[in-house]
Amino acid sequence: MNFVDIIRKKRDGLALTREEIEYFAFSAADGSVPDYQLSALLMAICFNGLNGRETLELTDAMARSGDVADLSAISGIKGDKHSTGGVGDKTTLVTAPIVAECGVKIAKMSGRGLGHTGGTVDKLESVPGFRSSLSPEEFTAVVNGCGLCVAGQSGRLCPADKKLYSLRDVTATVDNISLIASSIMSKKLAGGADCIVLDVKCGSGAFMKDRESAKQLAEKMVEIGRGAGKKIAALITNMDSPLGNCIGNSLEVAEAAETLRGNGPEDLTELSVLLAAKLLELAGKGDFDYCKALAMSKIKDGSALKKLAAMISMQGGDPEYIMAPSLLPTANLKLDITASESGYISHMNAAGIGSACVELGAGRHRKEDEIDHGAGIVLNKKTGDAVKKGEVIASLYSSKNEFLDIAALQFEKSVTFSEKKPDEIPILLEIIE
Amino acid sequence: MNFVDIIRKKRDGLALTREEIEYFAFSAADGSVPDYQLSALLMAICFNGLNGRETLELTDAMARSGDVADLSAISGIKGDKHSTGGVGDKTTLVTAPIVAECGVKIAKMSGRGLGHTGGTVDKLESVPGFRSSLSPEEFTAVVNGCGLCVAGQSGRLCPADKKLYSLRDVTATVDNISLIASSIMSKKLAGGADCIVLDVKCGSGAFMKDRESAKQLAEKMVEIGRGAGKKIAALITNMDSPLGNCIGNSLEVAEAAETLRGNGPEDLTELSVLLAAKLLELAGKGDFDYCKALAMSKIKDGSALKKLAAMISMQGGDPEYIMAPSLLPTANLKLDITASESGYISHMNAAGIGSACVELGAGRHRKEDEIDHGAGIVLNKKTGDAVKKGEVIASLYSSKNEFLDIAALQFEKSVTFSEKKPDEIPILLEIIE
Repeated sequence: MNFVDIIRKKRDGLALTREEIEYFAFSAADGSVPDYQLSALLMAICFNGLNGRETLELTDAMARSGDVADLSAISGIKGDKHSTGGVGDKTTLVTAPIVAECGVKIAKMSGRGLGHTGGTVDKLESVPGFRSSLSPEEFTAVVNGCGLCVAGQSGRLCPADKKLYSLRDVTATVDNISLIASSIMSKKLAGGADCIVLDVKCGSGAFMKDRESAKQLAEKMVEIGRGAGKKIAALITNMDSPLGNCIGNSLEVAEAAETLRGNGPEDLTELSVLLAAKLLELAGKGDFDYCKALAMSKIKDGSALKKLAAMISMQGGDPEYIMAPSLLPTANLKLDITASESGYISHMNAAGIGSACVELGAGRHRKEDEIDHGAGIVLNKKTGDAVKKGEVIASLYSSKNEFLDIAALQFEKSVTFSEKKPDEIPILLEIIE
Repeated sequence: MNFVDIIRKKRDGLALTREEIEYFAFSAADGSVPDYQLSALLMAICFNGLNGRETLELTDAMARSGDVADLSAISGIKGDKHSTGGVGDKTTLVTAPIVAECGVKIAKMSGRGLGHTGGTVDKLESVPGFRSSLSPEEFTAVVNGCGLCVAGQSGRLCPADKKLYSLRDVTATVDNISLIASSIMSKKLAGGADCIVLDVKCGSGAFMKDRESAKQLAEKMVEIGRGAGKKIAALITNMDSPLGNCIGNSLEVAEAAETLRGNGPEDLTELSVLLAAKLLELAGKGDFDYCKALAMSKIKDGSALKKLAAMISMQGGDPEYIMAPSLLPTANLKLDITASESGYISHMNAAGIGSACVELGAGRHRKEDEIDHGAGIVLNKKTGDAVKKGEVIASLYSSKNEFLDIAALQFEKSVTFSEKKPDEIPILLEIIE
């Protein structure tokens, strides 16, 4: 097969065959086709797109390009949850234990990522002793032992996606819905779960800024998942403001624990329960309303919190830190941010606040960067809240004074005030299934 | 400047600034931008094109990316001629001495190329002793001495084009009129001539298969040349059948010499004179009709032939081979091809006959290949000629019997016969200026 012919075919607007798609994915994974040919094809795809069949075949081939999780030693239905990423998004830490407590196994592999904070495994590593690097056998043992496990991704997970993703990033070929969807879904397919719930966020803090493009992405991913034989649904949710009140690694673990205790912020509680309910519904536990009530009951009776503690314990962490989150590390420097005007907070730009959090040391600029688990932001006020000039609206935490100053400027730029209370945007915008 | 932003801009259909275009060309030349970014931009250009200004700026930047010919030590008006390439195209060997004899200097650098035969310098190297690798000083001395010189291209001529051309070839990004035009014209601008005549061929043996695309390319190149301050015109000419009767290296030198002697085939004579006349007109020697008569007079009085001999002599070659072309080397094996039907030759596919010529050893499959100067094809009959079954229509020359067999099959596939005489296509289709 000649790769130039494949590029030419896509450039001319023709659909590629399964063999051509596989050649593309597998040679991206093994390096047998030079980068300049891969990037030319990626650009042609940005212009001429991939049809549904091509997208599914690309996703499937990327999923098979490296290690595929073998969940056969785990009995019962396996569920997975994915978020397209947002600021303050710690729903996995709340949703996963709820779902596991209801009898659906969560065998989740999670990336570290470049973001406002680390990924879910980085957050969990705030708990002393917690280990996210597990062998396949350890991983299976944890899931079989307590019903859930959150581990770091294997280095050989979807190498085709890894290669293409890094190339897309430097060749302006990120913005294609099929390529985005297949990148996300290849990792979900390689993860091996039976049921998948997707949290597709839109708004200022999301990858998809507007609802229409979030919906397109959600539909594409659901189509791929269904095509691959998965039970799948996507929630389109609001990420215009940060989710919950805490952004940072240990701060988010603490907030997740509080939420599992029933004391969480309303938006985080609602979204976590909705995601859990949808996953439970997909797993056949009952209809959506029943599953919402079921999920809530696992918060109310404290069993989901214990489930999270059990998992942390089985992964080497000290469960005391979950039962008493105030033990979790906090950076020793604190700076309060006060309202510059009286009135209402009309907008808190989630992306801007996320950037402030990175400046504090909570996220990574580059892959190699260390994370300060104790750094982050606690919001006292959020979009729509009434404030008085001089009132503390947020506290920034960092280990370095100079980080605080830069982050404070960034934070202040991200908040706007108004005399009138802004319209409220619900957390759940739409369900795609 | 961030190259990803440049790619994104072109992907989004925006025009690039001069600085961005120069960054593109110069970093292609010096290798400071990775190939995968260059190829992504090239693909985006294939979709969104380059406007007139961008095309001119890219051409100009590529011309300046390496050595630029310094013709300041050559007095008078300098002319150049370029052909987009065809089968049996030896017009440079006829046109250049005519023009030089009329007082317009020809300081021509010519590539070797991959084609049905070698390039003009390969053809000239059929003459024993002829040297095409000249220092800039030698080059100037030859032009000042006899009015014309045809030398090989410096390795540092348009390195940006060299890089982009080789990438386009393997990324299916060849077919963009702006990229094709700027590739050709960058070398013409670097060549430094004041007046340029372009021979843009169309038909089965040409890069441009149809007249419309040939016209687009011609218009684009003329626009670039004019934008760069050159006097320029393009002839759109017919390359559906081979030009003249000889295809090969020494065979073409011999035919060119015969044409300068006034005994050449009609099509070759006509086209060579038209190209010379247009270049002379551009150089201010008179109107087109006057220049045609002037050019013809240099054939009739034998002075153009002497001019070619003088140049060959100054470049180390033995001019006797031009004055008595039968001395030129011919491959020692010959195979006659006969007509398989009586009637007329309805079509001689020029590309197919060119391929047969490569099989005989006259052209290169790869850059490194040696050329057999004596190999080639002599046509006894051409499109439109009446033939009788069994009559010899062509003779193939090669140094190896097995080459002859493969070439004969290829040749025969390229010729079709009919009962009725086909319509004649004139050699000159249109002039763009």
